[in-house]
Amino acid sequence: MWSTMQDVPLTITSILRFGTGTFGTREVVTWTADGPRRRTFAEVGERAARLANALRALGVDGDQRVGTFMWNNAEHLEAYLAIPSMGAVLHTLNIRLSADQLAYIAGHAEDRVVLVDASLVPLLATVLPDMETVRHVVVVGDADTAPLEGAGKDLHSYEDLLAAASPDFDWPELDERQAAAMCYTSGTTGNPKGVAYSHRSSYLHSMSAATGNAFGLSASDRVMPVVPMFHANAWGLPYAALLAGASLVMPDRFLQAAPLVELIETERPTVAGAVPTIWADLLRHVREHGGDLSSLRLVPCGGSAVPESLLRGFDELGVRIVQAWGMTETSPVATVAHPPVGVTGDEAVRYRISQGRVLAGLEVRIVGDGDRVIPNDGTSVGEVEIRGPWITGAYVKAEDAGRFHDGWLRTGDVGTLDPDGYLVLTDRAKDVIKSGGEWISSVELENRLMAHPDVVEAAVVGVPDDRWQERPLASVVLREGATTTAADLRGFLGEHVPHWQLPERWTFIGEVPKTSVGKFDKKVLRRRYADGALPVEHLD
Amino acid sequence: MWSTMQDVPLTITSILRFGTGTFGTREVVTWTADGPRRRTFAEVGERAARLANALRALGVDGDQRVGTFMWNNAEHLEAYLAIPSMGAVLHTLNIRLSADQLAYIAGHAEDRVVLVDASLVPLLATVLPDMETVRHVVVVGDADTAPLEGAGKDLHSYEDLLAAASPDFDWPELDERQAAAMCYTSGTTGNPKGVAYSHRSSYLHSMSAATGNAFGLSASDRVMPVVPMFHANAWGLPYAALLAGASLVMPDRFLQAAPLVELIETERPTVAGAVPTIWADLLRHVREHGGDLSSLRLVPCGGSAVPESLLRGFDELGVRIVQAWGMTETSPVATVAHPPVGVTGDEAVRYRISQGRVLAGLEVRIVGDGDRVIPNDGTSVGEVEIRGPWITGAYVKAEDAGRFHDGWLRTGDVGTLDPDGYLVLTDRAKDVIKSGGEWISSVELENRLMAHPDVVEAAVVGVPDDRWQERPLASVVLREGATTTAADLRGFLGEHVPHWQLPERWTFIGEVPKTSVGKFDKKVLRRRYADGALPVEHLD
Repeated sequence: MWSTMQDVPLTITSILRFGTGTFGTREVVTWTADGPRRRTFAEVGERAARLANALRALGVDGDQRVGTFMWNNAEHLEAYLAIPSMGAVLHTLNIRLSADQLAYIAGHAEDRVVLVDASLVPLLATVLPDMETVRHVVVVGDADTAPLEGAGKDLHSYEDLLAAASPDFDWPELDERQAAAMCYTSGTTGNPKGVAYSHRSSYLHSMSAATGNAFGLSASDRVMPVVPMFHANAWGLPYAALLAGASLVMPDRFLQAAPLVELIETERPTVAGAVPTIWADLLRHVREHGGDLSSLRLVPCGGSAVPESLLRGFDELGVRIVQAWGMTETSPVATVAHPPVGVTGDEAVRYRISQGRVLAGLEVRIVGDGDRVIPNDGTSVGEVEIRGPWITGAYVKAEDAGRFHDGWLRTGDVGTLDPDGYLVLTDRAKDVIKSGGEWISSVELENRLMAHPDVVEAAVVGVPDDRWQERPLASVVLREGATTTAADLRGFLGEHVPHWQLPERWTFIGEVPKTSVGKFDKKVLRRRYADGALPVEHLD
Repeated sequence: MWSTMQDVPLTITSILRFGTGTFGTREVVTWTADGPRRRTFAEVGERAARLANALRALGVDGDQRVGTFMWNNAEHLEAYLAIPSMGAVLHTLNIRLSADQLAYIAGHAEDRVVLVDASLVPLLATVLPDMETVRHVVVVGDADTAPLEGAGKDLHSYEDLLAAASPDFDWPELDERQAAAMCYTSGTTGNPKGVAYSHRSSYLHSMSAATGNAFGLSASDRVMPVVPMFHANAWGLPYAALLAGASLVMPDRFLQAAPLVELIETERPTVAGAVPTIWADLLRHVREHGGDLSSLRLVPCGGSAVPESLLRGFDELGVRIVQAWGMTETSPVATVAHPPVGVTGDEAVRYRISQGRVLAGLEVRIVGDGDRVIPNDGTSVGEVEIRGPWITGAYVKAEDAGRFHDGWLRTGDVGTLDPDGYLVLTDRAKDVIKSGGEWISSVELENRLMAHPDVVEAAVVGVPDDRWQERPLASVVLREGATTTAADLRGFLGEHVPHWQLPERWTFIGEVPKTSVGKFDKKVLRRRYADGALPVEHLD
């Protein structure tokens, strides 16, 4: 028996219509060197229609990809709305990727047009000649476009295109499963992999962000996405704000603590999302120079684990940080760490530094050796798998069955799930050490070691072992002049860590090798160990 | 280009899994003559699986319909979860319909099984023999089932069936567009008409209820649906509570002010939904006898217009009423009346007594004569039409094209929409008076007339007029001994109402005829006027 309900698709077009119609008086504020500039949602809606007409006139048709190389600003919001709603696919290019990676992903996505902020023209110029599928570059704002010339692309001014275009666009009826936007993961191995969000997934993700167990967004909010719009749709905050009728406060390229504090004081956002590094800078700045953050009712924080000290530091300012976890493949918000009702103080902090509970609509499970689903008992450790309507089930034009398991995404994160649904991540799957059927968290050993006063850095990797399959190797950087021994450190670790987890293999090195984004490069340590290039001390 | 996202359907099964899994420690509290009884969501989940097995064993297969004839309690919640999740269709029978209507809708829906509360056995017994498609009756609780015997149905005990059934059920994969639940409108003309909600529509409606612009439900809430679960899914609150991880507080049949106050004081719900009559009784009771309603953070109120005095009365108690508007055909929540951000006091009340703003996902428009869409200017009056994924587009097994217009539902309500999206209803479409191309609200004239100290009741209907097509006829009941004349009343009206809207035709009657649910029966007045049965006085 079929229902009698209307068959209305869940689309970005619907978010566009709703946000710029019912909430047309809301505004998007963009920070500039001269202070804020403002535009109402109604104006954004009209300009999105002009942009769609302009892109159509440049030949963008069907589901062609349009790249953006932009900061967080009103024009990027216009692109977020116009490109998917016209049936094309928004491809947010991550300006922080290497030139090689950028050329690769623009080519892989077959971007036809790139919109670029004036301030990013010099950076785009270095890679544009290698973006072979790109025909048109549209420059937002006033820029010297000389560096772009010679790349063989047609250059346009965003404002000129909009001024010449009609303010009415006949938005097509779209299938909600059609691609709306693309993002590439900055994979540490191999080429970046593309995820294509659907209209449906983006819509549901936005709706979810507005629910009470996520960020409870409403028309009373002013939402400030500090997280870049080229990172997994700025955590979905721009679309969610339109859907909630919440005004947007955009920092553009002013991501340092001083301008952010000024922006918060001036525009009084109620919700602001960014990675821990940004908030740590801001906290330091406010402690040194003062600053009024009192407008913020909730500060979603994610991208890497939120340190307890950061959370407590903001608590002291009366500003509530809430940890959220996810990845490009999960749209990205998958879990949010609100404490259970009635739990307060230190007990609440224990829940708040977990990854939190999964949002309604999604399911998580923990999978152990042999792809066996293991209990949600808060102690059994395994890889986290996730499933739901805003989770990716494939990569664009890529065979990568290894990342999927019976329709679930293997997240590559390792952790536990407790009976109340709280997820705690303990390691990346590729870094966990599998010793005799039990799993040892490299991250936990590293954190314990780095708590020793003589240890500057410590990296722990799994190395082959005849008896246990794998055992931990601890690579330690001591502070200058320290005389601490491996046995000392093993004793120190033994105060907190079960005996069977203690490393037998130790090496003292001058520096832990790092990747281009500053993370420990454990591949290099494993290779050096395999090559016998590390001086290893064995303890019993 | 198709997206790479997982194709996971939006189903009641997903709400069941999530609510009884991640939030398995939440509880449903059911009020009884002996105080509260409690069950965890995990227990509800297990019992829902047992119920599905039991119904399967009774022969319920495919998309067969299972009726419920029940109050708000834990067992009704189990039926809400089990029946749609097993692929069958939940049909909530409105216990307040007449026996004829009940027999009609059970037959029209082809209900195979009916679950009935022990306290409702005598009422069901009066109609059961006429429910021809029903094979099985399952009695919840201890009851004398003698009145049900002789109807030729197999009788069962709910608890016996559950005890004998397996606690595991292999929930099928369902299409989200499949019917999940049915509700019949108690239409004032003709037979009741059936609406079949889909899994998708119920899911999205629940998610919407949890967003900040609706009720912002979260795991911190305790939700008390006073509105019956046989009225449009109790406004979707039971499903929304599961999805939000909010505990449920169920009043069962104890809907009088005294037990409701005791329930609120004992179980401390944070959100409670009911019609204005219930809240007015409660307010009166608390004013006379005292009572602690301080646990309530939000009181959704709808079903009929919320009087300003009620809203202000609750404000004085520190409890915030929020008006919501919808109908069976809209799942039902369509608009919610939160005031604009920053607006407070009397100015806020003006918005709070409107029907509010439409929820994200839905669209409303105002349509005038000739099905022309008219401006959202806050003054142009027309019929309200609505569209969206939880709005019905047809009736079950019924041709009723007149209620639909280009894919939109004609709500039968008349009103205005302002540029900020606030909807104000002024009349029912069938009662509005169309005078020379302009519309006159019968409700506004009635309210103005009833504000006169000598007027007990007043009903205004449109009657044929040679020049203006229609003109208002005012039917007035004066208080005993009053000597007020039609001219006096016309003068009184003229202080507030434009001259062209003032009735020329007046009649004084002993009582306004009423329908079975106590509403003015305007059909009767129109017929009496047409028959010349009313003594009408004409003024110029």
